Amino acid sequence: MKGFSFYGGHAGIKKNEECKDLGIIVAPQGCHYAVVFTQNQIQAAPVVLSQAHYKKSEILYAVICNSGNANACTGAQGHADALAMCSVLQEALYEIDLSICIDQIQVCSTGVIGAPLPIDSILSHIPYAMSALDSNHTLQFAEAIMTTDTRPKMRSLTFTTNRVDSTKNDTYTLWGAVKGAGMIHPNMATMLAFICTDAPIPTQSIKVMWQEVCDQSFNAITIDGDTSTNDTALFMSSGVSLGEQDLSTQDLNSFQCILQDLALSLALDILRDGEGVHHVVHIEVKGAHSIKDARQIAQTIALSPLVKTAIHGKDPNWGRIIAAIGRSQVKINPQSIDLSIEDTMIYKQGTWQGEASEVHAHTHMCTAEYKMTIDLHLGEAACTVYGTDLSKDYVSINADYRS
Amino acid sequence: MKGFSFYGGHAGIKKNEECKDLGIIVAPQGCHYAVVFTQNQIQAAPVVLSQAHYKKSEILYAVICNSGNANACTGAQGHADALAMCSVLQEALYEIDLSICIDQIQVCSTGVIGAPLPIDSILSHIPYAMSALDSNHTLQFAEAIMTTDTRPKMRSLTFTTNRVDSTKNDTYTLWGAVKGAGMIHPNMATMLAFICTDAPIPTQSIKVMWQEVCDQSFNAITIDGDTSTNDTALFMSSGVSLGEQDLSTQDLNSFQCILQDLALSLALDILRDGEGVHHVVHIEVKGAHSIKDARQIAQTIALSPLVKTAIHGKDPNWGRIIAAIGRSQVKINPQSIDLSIEDTMIYKQGTWQGEASEVHAHTHMCTAEYKMTIDLHLGEAACTVYGTDLSKDYVSINADYRS
Repeated sequence: MKGFSFYGGHAGIKKNEECKDLGIIVAPQGCHYAVVFTQNQIQAAPVVLSQAHYKKSEILYAVICNSGNANACTGAQGHADALAMCSVLQEALYEIDLSICIDQIQVCSTGVIGAPLPIDSILSHIPYAMSALDSNHTLQFAEAIMTTDTRPKMRSLTFTTNRVDSTKNDTYTLWGAVKGAGMIHPNMATMLAFICTDAPIPTQSIKVMWQEVCDQSFNAITIDGDTSTNDTALFMSSGVSLGEQDLSTQDLNSFQCILQDLALSLALDILRDGEGVHHVVHIEVKGAHSIKDARQIAQTIALSPLVKTAIHGKDPNWGRIIAAIGRSQVKINPQSIDLSIEDTMIYKQGTWQGEASEVHAHTHMCTAEYKMTIDLHLGEAACTVYGTDLSKDYVSINADYRS
Repeated sequence: MKGFSFYGGHAGIKKNEECKDLGIIVAPQGCHYAVVFTQNQIQAAPVVLSQAHYKKSEILYAVICNSGNANACTGAQGHADALAMCSVLQEALYEIDLSICIDQIQVCSTGVIGAPLPIDSILSHIPYAMSALDSNHTLQFAEAIMTTDTRPKMRSLTFTTNRVDSTKNDTYTLWGAVKGAGMIHPNMATMLAFICTDAPIPTQSIKVMWQEVCDQSFNAITIDGDTSTNDTALFMSSGVSLGEQDLSTQDLNSFQCILQDLALSLALDILRDGEGVHHVVHIEVKGAHSIKDARQIAQTIALSPLVKTAIHGKDPNWGRIIAAIGRSQVKINPQSIDLSIEDTMIYKQGTWQGEASEVHAHTHMCTAEYKMTIDLHLGEAACTVYGTDLSKDYVSINADYRS
């Protein structure tokens, strides 16, 4: 992928020296970018700083991200540390002949809240990192942003233009890496996502495109309803800076579909690797009056501990699902609700469809990933939310996290 | 306690014949009463019927309650069955010379959702139950309403009037029984509560008094955020029907305090016996702009799976608590938040209070029940919500419930 180089290595944050904890992406020619930040009112120092930078500059040259420490709730020192990471990166880039403004850098941190960053160790590592930047080091970067993730998560796709007025169609690459695991909930919960493309996305399109994509991917997944202080989803496009010809409106629409595919796949990868997750469930609520209503019902189902434990037990316990719908605060008609697990309807117009339907549903629920569909029969709107089961492993991981 | 008799026995609903599953309370002279019902839009047949009865009659003569089956999502048959329980009880009471209207009966069910009631078995048992009514059979009643509860839960208190114009002060009894365990959340989640008193509570006071008491007791406890289709909290006062002298306004206020004590103790008994509960935490949010704000923050903390697992791990993980406050949708000032566990402040004005404070807090968190206090320093309003930890046992119980 043209226009980006990557670094991932150990900068002394994590105790285990074999674990990478510092990732850097550099776009030497600069890139257009869009960011979606956490909506938590308690925001980590790097989020506060990156938001300020985002307001000031339409062009991004570098991203620096550490794992192992969230630099959140760390007071004035935390803000100074986030600034120092940008400042030292700016100097190190200058040493390799890239002169940029400090607000053309984004900074991210993820890990434990409240502890001070081992900032000296990080800063002294940055010049070395500059010497090791490589356009092929995407996996190293993906490894460097992991916390309780069990595996690095990255994917890539290609996009080919469909230029009717030209014999030559261009092919571009999209690449993305994410980290997630716990605290995954709509509105950017301890989750970092970085997607790069060499396709030329104009600055006037990129923000709206990225918000729409995030709403149907990273903001549609939920494990525990908690939203972290640090989450950031960043989309970078180097094509315009590299002098690529503008995409047509039609190509931009096609590109957004590919980007949506990539983002949703990465978002689902986060769930699949979620803390103690055994089952991923695509919960579609349709026949609602509005998308907002559909989303609220789907989220209430996805977050219900009783539904989540039933999913874990492979138990088509429709009573708990129906009870969750009933308490979702969205006005419904109890007598018009249909509920299916994959193609098996177990509840139709407010009535249980009998033992055999549950037996069929149970076999679907034994698989790692399946679909649950609720039709309210009230309107035309639909929304899908992606949830998980609640297992004993989740409790173990989160009860023991700091001990 | 004058004016009430009780029954609890096995009517063939639960498989184990040694488990009681039908409870009845009869007030032969009638009583004033107030009821708070579930706010779930999906309401079980007995809830629908009892609400209709509640609107029609200010006097109650009998309550019939079965456990083992919720008679919820059971369609037209469910409604017919709930009506039959009242109708056969009405006939059976007529046989023992108590002639009442059917709408002077309340009916409750609790247990598995969706399965039809073994109605013939229940109905044929009712006449026998009439012959076994006894004013001392309160424990039998408390046993008869249990589902996954590990123990019957009942308490009693006495109230003595303070009549300045009289040499004689009257003493009255308050008695209550509850069932709970899973699905406990504000707004009456799979929870039944019955409180009886022989004190004379006038009909114009009883509804407001009971709603206020419920808001600070049964509606202030939460285990998993789920709200059932069946929950009902019923308060009955026989004193007026028994010809007792009216309580003074001052005595009514004092009585409400005693009633509040009893209801909160019973509500906490439900948490203490909650599915897989090891720790009960009193979460007080103070310094808020409004009680609504304080409640919303306290509930967000109480329902956060990450906070709940930290409570389980005895881990003073203030970062998760602060993150929950930040995502509660209530406008806060991150720099003015104080957080204490019992008398140990671990976070003050947005800053961690150091390792030693966490060590102290940890020792408090090793106890079965303790207090967490959040001071927002924004206003004068406060609210306490009562929550629990999230344990592997919770997952086991709820993943295996129907299997």
